[in-house]
Amino acid sequence: MTKKHTIILQPSGRRGQVEEGVSVRTAARELGVEIESICAENATCGKCLVLIEEGRFEKYNIDSKREHLSPVSTEEANYFKRRPKLLKDKGWEVGQVRLSCQAKIRGDVLINVPEESRGNKQIVRKTARERKIEVKPAIRKYLVSMSPPTLERPIADWERLAKGLETSMALVRGTEEKLPRWHELKIDYQCLRTLSKTLREAKWQVTVSVWNDREVIQVQPGYVEDSYGAAVDIGSTTVALYLCNLRTGELLAAESEMNPQIVYGEDVMSRIQYTIEHPDGLEKLHKAIIATLNKLLKQAVKTANEKIHETAGFDTVEKNARPTQPAEITVDDILEMVLVGNSTMHHLVLNLPPKDLGLAPFVPAIHESLDVKARELGIHINPSGNVHVLPTIASFVGADTSAMILAEEPHKQDENWLLIDVGTNAELVLGNRRRLVCTSTPTGPALEGAHVEYGMRAAPGAIERVHIDERTLEPKYKIVGEEEWNTGKAKGICGSAIIDAVAELFRAEIVDSRGRFKKGLSTKRVREGESGWEYVIAWAEETSIGRDIPITQQDVRQIQLAKAALFTAARTLLKRMNLESPDKIILAGGFGSYIDKEKAMLIGLIPDCPLENVYAVGNAAGDGARIALLNIEKRNEIDNVTRKVERFELPTDPEFQNQFMLATSFPHMSEPFPHIAHLIPHRKADPMAKNFMK
Amino acid sequence: MTKKHTIILQPSGRRGQVEEGVSVRTAARELGVEIESICAENATCGKCLVLIEEGRFEKYNIDSKREHLSPVSTEEANYFKRRPKLLKDKGWEVGQVRLSCQAKIRGDVLINVPEESRGNKQIVRKTARERKIEVKPAIRKYLVSMSPPTLERPIADWERLAKGLETSMALVRGTEEKLPRWHELKIDYQCLRTLSKTLREAKWQVTVSVWNDREVIQVQPGYVEDSYGAAVDIGSTTVALYLCNLRTGELLAAESEMNPQIVYGEDVMSRIQYTIEHPDGLEKLHKAIIATLNKLLKQAVKTANEKIHETAGFDTVEKNARPTQPAEITVDDILEMVLVGNSTMHHLVLNLPPKDLGLAPFVPAIHESLDVKARELGIHINPSGNVHVLPTIASFVGADTSAMILAEEPHKQDENWLLIDVGTNAELVLGNRRRLVCTSTPTGPALEGAHVEYGMRAAPGAIERVHIDERTLEPKYKIVGEEEWNTGKAKGICGSAIIDAVAELFRAEIVDSRGRFKKGLSTKRVREGESGWEYVIAWAEETSIGRDIPITQQDVRQIQLAKAALFTAARTLLKRMNLESPDKIILAGGFGSYIDKEKAMLIGLIPDCPLENVYAVGNAAGDGARIALLNIEKRNEIDNVTRKVERFELPTDPEFQNQFMLATSFPHMSEPFPHIAHLIPHRKADPMAKNFMK
Repeated sequence: MTKKHTIILQPSGRRGQVEEGVSVRTAARELGVEIESICAENATCGKCLVLIEEGRFEKYNIDSKREHLSPVSTEEANYFKRRPKLLKDKGWEVGQVRLSCQAKIRGDVLINVPEESRGNKQIVRKTARERKIEVKPAIRKYLVSMSPPTLERPIADWERLAKGLETSMALVRGTEEKLPRWHELKIDYQCLRTLSKTLREAKWQVTVSVWNDREVIQVQPGYVEDSYGAAVDIGSTTVALYLCNLRTGELLAAESEMNPQIVYGEDVMSRIQYTIEHPDGLEKLHKAIIATLNKLLKQAVKTANEKIHETAGFDTVEKNARPTQPAEITVDDILEMVLVGNSTMHHLVLNLPPKDLGLAPFVPAIHESLDVKARELGIHINPSGNVHVLPTIASFVGADTSAMILAEEPHKQDENWLLIDVGTNAELVLGNRRRLVCTSTPTGPALEGAHVEYGMRAAPGAIERVHIDERTLEPKYKIVGEEEWNTGKAKGICGSAIIDAVAELFRAEIVDSRGRFKKGLSTKRVREGESGWEYVIAWAEETSIGRDIPITQQDVRQIQLAKAALFTAARTLLKRMNLESPDKIILAGGFGSYIDKEKAMLIGLIPDCPLENVYAVGNAAGDGARIALLNIEKRNEIDNVTRKVERFELPTDPEFQNQFMLATSFPHMSEPFPHIAHLIPHRKADPMAKNFMK
Repeated sequence: MTKKHTIILQPSGRRGQVEEGVSVRTAARELGVEIESICAENATCGKCLVLIEEGRFEKYNIDSKREHLSPVSTEEANYFKRRPKLLKDKGWEVGQVRLSCQAKIRGDVLINVPEESRGNKQIVRKTARERKIEVKPAIRKYLVSMSPPTLERPIADWERLAKGLETSMALVRGTEEKLPRWHELKIDYQCLRTLSKTLREAKWQVTVSVWNDREVIQVQPGYVEDSYGAAVDIGSTTVALYLCNLRTGELLAAESEMNPQIVYGEDVMSRIQYTIEHPDGLEKLHKAIIATLNKLLKQAVKTANEKIHETAGFDTVEKNARPTQPAEITVDDILEMVLVGNSTMHHLVLNLPPKDLGLAPFVPAIHESLDVKARELGIHINPSGNVHVLPTIASFVGADTSAMILAEEPHKQDENWLLIDVGTNAELVLGNRRRLVCTSTPTGPALEGAHVEYGMRAAPGAIERVHIDERTLEPKYKIVGEEEWNTGKAKGICGSAIIDAVAELFRAEIVDSRGRFKKGLSTKRVREGESGWEYVIAWAEETSIGRDIPITQQDVRQIQLAKAALFTAARTLLKRMNLESPDKIILAGGFGSYIDKEKAMLIGLIPDCPLENVYAVGNAAGDGARIALLNIEKRNEIDNVTRKVERFELPTDPEFQNQFMLATSFPHMSEPFPHIAHLIPHRKADPMAKNFMK
């Protein structure tokens, strides 16, 4: 038997075992990652190039690239010799970059497939909602015209500017606003360094960008109207960046990338562990995320500039005759960034040791929001720009939850709202204007389609919807990227389809309320597979992988555990507030947007509530970050709210354990679910269901 | 005739032409710099090693070390082969370090003679006065004891500390003081990074250093009593650093070094020019001074620790049984630095382009004081520490003048005080509590002993006092380092002796009131030398250089120009204030301390004033820096004062030119000098003196 090696492909995160000696391109295809090629693997087109990265995954330590792949072949070397510019532009070295059709697997290896080489472009589903946010940014711009210094009045450049700025601020903002006097204004030290040169080049007419009504952070020649800001949601898996115009609030670009820290551990606990076990672990994780932020910033600026070129015609150019307005945005025009993320992401991006987030009694280094100069973090916006980091609430209730609260505003409601953000960990906030309580619970990766036998992310080829006919027990499914049901070639199952499938299996009485497959049903789809009982959703010939795609007993069990965790957490908060059920349920995150809320309630993933009061709001954390970016008053608001949120850890007593076990059944045996009662199969024979529907 | 090359020796700054082929050691001796040697130039003792530095001086560009010296000889190479540790410890490379007895001059070269190789250790005369300063530092330390976090109260580390700190601050300072609430306190970002670790290692009992009652900048385990600060006066020639205990105000070390920027230009104008002509000029000058500050900090810490060891006996150790008090100071314990210097030094240390300081209309980048994090400047105190830079008043009236005002407090007087700080440039401040006016004037290097035929700095061998018998016309002189008059071997003349000599030549009627040497006097000491008429102070056999040391006509002329500049500047300010003369004259700087004030008045260097009201206060700028370091309220005070000081440029009209020419005479022809009248020779024959003494 041939030797096998573990391969990880980035940014998809796909991993698996492949045989020694196959090409990287073939190996990638086996793992479901298509790599371009138009020269039939002749080492001529160069479409298939990949980057060989070092890193650590699970037990493997990949120390050297060379040991794990065949050496660079003559053909391959010749290809790169003909492309010196490509190597120079990208800063690549041969050996680090390989032609995936030529390089053969000889050991465990971590491979990065760059965007341009990818066969099926990945869809990352976090997109910002267009949302009305009152625009009151921290950055304001003022045109300041000064008389040049003379021998009679040789006042210094900064004082001259500050006096002019005082006048401009009063003119623009009106005298009724409380504004600083000129000698109370400050200038950022790095900004001061180029002031004298700029003032003279600009002939004493400049546009001054003031942060928070008190600090000058940019001085540009002439009249400049716009400045820009970036809101970033750092998820454990995906990092999403929104580039906004700080004057108009307009969203100019929404970019996302995989979180590169995934190489060091899939979930937050394993990343924390990595920083504990490796002396340079924190530094590595920190640098990785900063590099990704800088990459996203570049991409967003590129996207925004493409948009500017598209909309710019002769008309616009002539009408908009402002000679000093820069035609293109640069990263230097980005003057502020707002960051949100769970507490671990928060610590890692700030280079704070996350150790105590993962050890009892589980405390963050800091709750309150932070303002740090971009240059201190190595973030490539304007070096004088500010990075605002939203407050954390607890070790497992992070700045992303603060942002979600800010976006959804439960603290302004009379009704009781339940906010749920589901990832591998779920954060829950419940309450109203008088009181907010929160908690968190691990839900595992199953709800995101990971660690499920044929689970995959929401990418082309992924089954995203499942319906099972309760008479024939035959399924219908819909694939990402296809318009019609039952068309296209399936590659795997994503998170929303797993919820669908489990709910449908229960509704069609293929599994019982305790999640067990029934035997002896009149369908070939239920069968005993390699790892136990399973239900086949797609037969091999309907797939692009040439294998049956089933939902297994193990998959159903994982969903049961996840939903029980979520349900008991919600129940705990409701008890704290002396409530039977929430008035409204808000599902945040990509997960909430793509699940069928009726089916989620059918399996008891969320408490009972009128279906019309269950909302999926998409990336609420990202929205909250944008709100904080565009409106400085909101930063104060969320600082005050988070200081008052009550944190609860889930109990660990036997009574709670019992509750948890009951909650694994469908929907939840001890709870009434009037709003989905019509969907629940009547199985009076099940003794565990005796309390049900009473 | 043999070829000659220009040699500059650092840190003494001595320069001169030497013949090709002589050894560096011989060349240095010819220029008055002794280099150690005990092996009779056999390349065995290694006492004579020197560092070959690159740099630029005047018209010379020294690009490569190798072209300008003979290659490393076998003997020399063998010496260094036997000393690998020396090279490693110092980070030296052979070729950069040479044995000065072996290396032969082949071109222009800049040589650094390290302290250990110097034959006569240099005395830098700036020393801090012991002065009463009310100690109200920006840094305060508080012991904070916290209860550790629990599952029930998992509040974050910073919030836990901030709440404890609020309590401690109130206890220490009393509730009547206006102190921030816990959520108004901030923590420096870099300090936050190590907070969690420190709190746990310290078992939740720490000493917290708070800057300006609002920002935590250091957290140390256990109880720590003291923190430290450094006050620095950056002169164009000398940099002086004072290390102080911020709790007691005690001066722990006073260190000084030559300003390394001297390599790029002797005076401020040539350094400004250097930054204009070289794209990397500013960066070079900035890095040079920062490196010197870091060197001085290290030296000061070493000195302070030596002092600690000296004073620590068994007694002290037992009485002072505080286990967590660090036995030794490190640079990390220095939590604040205050910087002063002229406007050019101010700009260069802050990395601000000084171009416009040197071009009409002569404006600084900034007047107001600045607070910059030490890490932003690369200054190696605690990276979270603050660097406070005092305000500048004008392009040629810098932060050193602000510091002088702060030290001498003319703004608190009813009388009119005239403050004069003399260097190659003189700054003058005149006024009282109601009004202060200031100006500056170039005085040239003559008053500091430079550019004088046999001028030298106040170092061993320098003549520092001169007296001429008015009957015999014979001189007496005193040499630095000698107790008695007319003992020791003279090497040159330092600034104070030049003033003495010129005044004595005038008093003894060897030169007339217009500064011309009289011919036909009955002394061999007055003679026509190589460069014109001169008066010999020391004959060759009385010197260590084997040559006569004279005062030349040219030297007298230079003093006349310098004193005229100073006098007209003072006169201009007096007129602005409608005053005849000041009530008090305060001479700041090393110069003021070593000149004979009676003789200075005799030649008209300073306006007439009762001699008992003329004070030499030493390094007032350094004192001001220390005051600002030890008392934060003083920073506000000087900010307010400098905003109100009126700046005057000296006029350039013909009337002023005429005034200036008159002022070159001794003392000043149009002015009454009643307080030194008894010293002035009665020369009614001189027609220019006709208005005099009326």
